[in-house]
Amino acid sequence: MMPRSELILNPLLISTAAPPIPEAKAWAARYGDSAGPLIDLSQAVPGYPPHPDLLERLGEAARSREAAAYGDILGDAPLRRAYATDVSALYDARIRPENVAITAGCNQAFFVTAIALAKAGDAVMLPTPWYFNHKMALDMLGIEAVALPCRAENGFVPDADDARRHLSESVRAIVLVTPNNPTGAVYPPETIAAFRDLCAERNIPLVLDETYRDFMAKAAPPHDCLAGPDWAKTVVQLYSFSKAYCIPGHRAGAIVADAKMLAETAKIIDTLQICAPRVPQMVLPWAIEALRDWRETNRQEIAGRAAAFSRAIDALDGWSIGSIGAYFAYVAHPFRDRSDAEICEWLAAERGVLCLPGGYFGPSQDGFLRVAFANVDVSAIAQIPARLAEGSIALGAASRVQAHR
Amino acid sequence: MMPRSELILNPLLISTAAPPIPEAKAWAARYGDSAGPLIDLSQAVPGYPPHPDLLERLGEAARSREAAAYGDILGDAPLRRAYATDVSALYDARIRPENVAITAGCNQAFFVTAIALAKAGDAVMLPTPWYFNHKMALDMLGIEAVALPCRAENGFVPDADDARRHLSESVRAIVLVTPNNPTGAVYPPETIAAFRDLCAERNIPLVLDETYRDFMAKAAPPHDCLAGPDWAKTVVQLYSFSKAYCIPGHRAGAIVADAKMLAETAKIIDTLQICAPRVPQMVLPWAIEALRDWRETNRQEIAGRAAAFSRAIDALDGWSIGSIGAYFAYVAHPFRDRSDAEICEWLAAERGVLCLPGGYFGPSQDGFLRVAFANVDVSAIAQIPARLAEGSIALGAASRVQAHR
Repeated sequence: MMPRSELILNPLLISTAAPPIPEAKAWAARYGDSAGPLIDLSQAVPGYPPHPDLLERLGEAARSREAAAYGDILGDAPLRRAYATDVSALYDARIRPENVAITAGCNQAFFVTAIALAKAGDAVMLPTPWYFNHKMALDMLGIEAVALPCRAENGFVPDADDARRHLSESVRAIVLVTPNNPTGAVYPPETIAAFRDLCAERNIPLVLDETYRDFMAKAAPPHDCLAGPDWAKTVVQLYSFSKAYCIPGHRAGAIVADAKMLAETAKIIDTLQICAPRVPQMVLPWAIEALRDWRETNRQEIAGRAAAFSRAIDALDGWSIGSIGAYFAYVAHPFRDRSDAEICEWLAAERGVLCLPGGYFGPSQDGFLRVAFANVDVSAIAQIPARLAEGSIALGAASRVQAHR
Repeated sequence: MMPRSELILNPLLISTAAPPIPEAKAWAARYGDSAGPLIDLSQAVPGYPPHPDLLERLGEAARSREAAAYGDILGDAPLRRAYATDVSALYDARIRPENVAITAGCNQAFFVTAIALAKAGDAVMLPTPWYFNHKMALDMLGIEAVALPCRAENGFVPDADDARRHLSESVRAIVLVTPNNPTGAVYPPETIAAFRDLCAERNIPLVLDETYRDFMAKAAPPHDCLAGPDWAKTVVQLYSFSKAYCIPGHRAGAIVADAKMLAETAKIIDTLQICAPRVPQMVLPWAIEALRDWRETNRQEIAGRAAAFSRAIDALDGWSIGSIGAYFAYVAHPFRDRSDAEICEWLAAERGVLCLPGGYFGPSQDGFLRVAFANVDVSAIAQIPARLAEGSIALGAASRVQAHR
């Protein structure tokens, strides 16, 4: 697919899969609005604007000389303090500013953590379906991704006993994404605790990517893995400010971990970028406190979209929800004689509904599509059944035609 | 020095040297203003503010919804176009937008390029003294840094024939930093061409880090390595918008390279951060054109600082300029019985002059200090001789006291 350079490149990079979103976007680019405006369910981007006060403050910050200057490698002190306080409250934990490193988004938090924990030739365990960027990062670094298959019958929640059977000496960490991308599955606290115990027993870190945690139902803490006195001996938590604050273009994320690990991690962040961009760092300490109600309103809105999407799928013959939560649903489709990619291409180019094939998210994902339902409002979600139902008919017909050739 | 985590970390990271600037800043933090305000010559940070119109436009951009959204992985199209045009004019070359990738600063451009070109177990050649972040990046990635010693008698300009003798099959690229950090040496076009020819002969890329090129005397193009039709088969050029535009906190840099290499590099940038921060990308296309005169004024100002710094050192017994140019000077000091680090610590903590020991920049750098003279204005530079001269006396005395023990 990708033409080769005449320069001799890192063979690990060449064999790393290309980012899949552009391929999917190209399918949608061929859509001609025949079924109404494109419904883009491909990428987890907030479907509503940032708070106007946040935009105003970002503008003020960017106009300052302060924002133009280098900041501390591990992040601006006020943001490390504010985020430590926020995480401590959410998890009933005692997280100190020294336990926080600020990154340019959560992908970078993962990339940095991968280098901190593993070298080429080591392995890291990822439940499947996995977030493709995690797999890509490990591949290009020469770190083996050990797949831990999640079971559809368990709602795509991974099982620590399964993990134990797949662990080898070369596995340097286990990574859980909860709420999950791509499946939307919200892992129960007991599951996360079981993984924590397994990791503690094997003396390897448990990396929790909680990019989508702000969109979970608020009740008890999502897990107790940051609450105990020894959390830092096992747990590394990753976060993104992109989703909850609607500012992915500003690039802000965080790692919560052992302070001594972060002191080592400073070497990576320094060589990678000196410091994370200053503008969002200068504004987020305010936003963490001031935009709580706004974030809660958005959470409720997106919970409403999840409910609407579930109803939409339930109304369709042959379709079903494999799992759903936070930003994503993993949806089983009825077209067993076509590849997921063919189905997604057809839905995008002909029916104006862009979602991603299960195959983007690892081996043995046939029959599932990832739907980022949070991107679109309830009125757009209400149009989905008609688009998929008509799509079903046409695809079914196309299959029959092909079968006769 | 750095306490170890109880988590088991990547041993390559543990054995990577810590970023040295914080150590030096700690020396300066002990200074009590006894000789006048601190003169910080440690880090290459512009000593003057960004243009007020640039700050205003950064503010406007950051206030927009557009800046809050994800951008293209390899950078915003208007900036890729504007930078391609700028580089084409400067190097009498035909660089297309597809030859440009936007990164979060030039450190990231290097980190990304290192992963694009080499895997763990490969090697990359770095002239010594080297930029410590380059060495750190290679170390943590398991890529061997093959040292190419620059000769003081050649003004710290590396020699392609020396490089040929140090090359092995495992070397996947040669990296030149010109104008150089730490020495300030501006490599002559013939030198760069000789390295280009050597790399072309060996079919390995020549990576040119030109972070400081805006501070060179303007005359002919700095080299002809981007001018020929086959440049992209050999040359990868790295750049930073941080220095010329005084916006290091916004994080913006660029890679100019073969378009097919950049298509592969998109995998790295995607997993590393999705896209570079949007705010500076939205403003730089304007700034590249609109701030030409302002940049030229700054270049002249910094050239004046270089001249003033040379005069200051020439006036001091026992001190001499090893090389100087753009932002930096590499200065020989007269204290042969003390380590460079001891001398820098003493100068910082007692005399209020912060520069960096040669030892930060690789093996066999005894006797030299790196001075980022561009940070301070001519009136501050004028105070340097008195501070160093008094420092000389006290250090000399201290040495004698120690010798008597």
